[in-house]
Amino acid sequence: MIILKIGGSVITNKTKQNSFKQSVMSNLSKEIKKANKEIILVHGAGSFGHILAKKYDLNKGYVRKDQINGYSLTHANVQRLNTLVLDCLHKNNVPGVSLSPHTVLKLSNHKLSEINYRIFEEYLKSHFVPVTFGDVVLDEKLGFSICSGDLLVSTLAEHFRPEKVVFVIDEDGLYTANPKINKNAKLMDDVTLKDLEMFTTAMDSHADVTRGMGGKIDIIKNVARLGIDTVLLNGNKPGRLYHVLAGKDTKCTVVRGL
Amino acid sequence: MIILKIGGSVITNKTKQNSFKQSVMSNLSKEIKKANKEIILVHGAGSFGHILAKKYDLNKGYVRKDQINGYSLTHANVQRLNTLVLDCLHKNNVPGVSLSPHTVLKLSNHKLSEINYRIFEEYLKSHFVPVTFGDVVLDEKLGFSICSGDLLVSTLAEHFRPEKVVFVIDEDGLYTANPKINKNAKLMDDVTLKDLEMFTTAMDSHADVTRGMGGKIDIIKNVARLGIDTVLLNGNKPGRLYHVLAGKDTKCTVVRGL
Repeated sequence: MIILKIGGSVITNKTKQNSFKQSVMSNLSKEIKKANKEIILVHGAGSFGHILAKKYDLNKGYVRKDQINGYSLTHANVQRLNTLVLDCLHKNNVPGVSLSPHTVLKLSNHKLSEINYRIFEEYLKSHFVPVTFGDVVLDEKLGFSICSGDLLVSTLAEHFRPEKVVFVIDEDGLYTANPKINKNAKLMDDVTLKDLEMFTTAMDSHADVTRGMGGKIDIIKNVARLGIDTVLLNGNKPGRLYHVLAGKDTKCTVVRGL
Repeated sequence: MIILKIGGSVITNKTKQNSFKQSVMSNLSKEIKKANKEIILVHGAGSFGHILAKKYDLNKGYVRKDQINGYSLTHANVQRLNTLVLDCLHKNNVPGVSLSPHTVLKLSNHKLSEINYRIFEEYLKSHFVPVTFGDVVLDEKLGFSICSGDLLVSTLAEHFRPEKVVFVIDEDGLYTANPKINKNAKLMDDVTLKDLEMFTTAMDSHADVTRGMGGKIDIIKNVARLGIDTVLLNGNKPGRLYHVLAGKDTKCTVVRGL
């Protein structure tokens, strides 16, 4: 089984609220169908979630009354993105079923406190593709907070021990520096946990309440410590996702599990 | 607390797939806001759910392979309706939060086998309006089946013992015969469980996998046996929902709890 994370920056324009990149998600759906693997899909919230979550300070937990409306709005807006993602999957005969994180897990001061793995197992057993996503969720300590897609990947990887974890991002993989601002940045095609620990990525400059690439590196380290390879690939380049899912060579970064 | 069921036939055109009656739902949202009561909202799936569910025989459980895609499609389509309902609520400052039934409950041969009441309680405590809906769900015996909005009402009423249960339908209330086909049908404004037990409604002629009015009568009887009043009112007539929520007189049917 493969845990596949599709970044919010790949399927939305992160600086423009509610702009969905339908053709990108359609292409990715075709490649998922073609690869025909057992998959749990996690997608980011992109501009459907981050802009509202930031406006209402939702990751701080409950601090003021207008956040109740803000939380509701954000949640519905991420559900809107999720429905668009499901549409692309279904048009390509990938039977995605939405598992909204706030009903399957709870956080406590930003950390996972409980999760219903069984519903993922049941849908997998029946040959569905469980689809979950970064979203606002209840938090025992804070009232509510944000569950990032990356936290979901880490949690699900720990439980399901997939054959690999795949991150579809808007770069070709991991670079020695932030390629958006540094022309000398070099793509790393095959790295170990040790390489990663020396490597400090320049933080993503986009509005992202979930820390962008910085947070992702921590997740990848956790996955590597489980002995599982992580692959990062560019979702805007046709064919790469299929090649990675099918175990074929393509341009990407592989972070080796220990 | 009030459990409020808004029928699929009120907010969709049940004979035409995916036709949402936005102005009706907007009016109802305004009245919910104005009444300012603690509410759990349940809505039907209407033409967003029933047409696909029937096409793929989803209430029979798993009998053939194409149902996997059919289930996914139906679920996403009901989620689409739910997002439209949430939009109307949010535009009127009602903080609805979606609780997708397949993640909060399980059925076993069409009967409830488990449900997470806690998440409803937690959202109520934080002054949200939990919103759930008729949808496809997993079924321990059948693989999957349908959880009707009416089953949700019955289950939630039994647990939460609300001050009343309100059904928003597309008629003025309960009639002595089916008012759609019988001109002599008379509206019953105040009835007891005994009256209801003598009363046999002509089955709803619309395409509805969840039995239409026939199934609703059984639910209302269960609610009455809990000692709780049920009110049925016409969602197309402005003001009636507000009056019922606020405990004022209006045209409707009240079924008295025992």
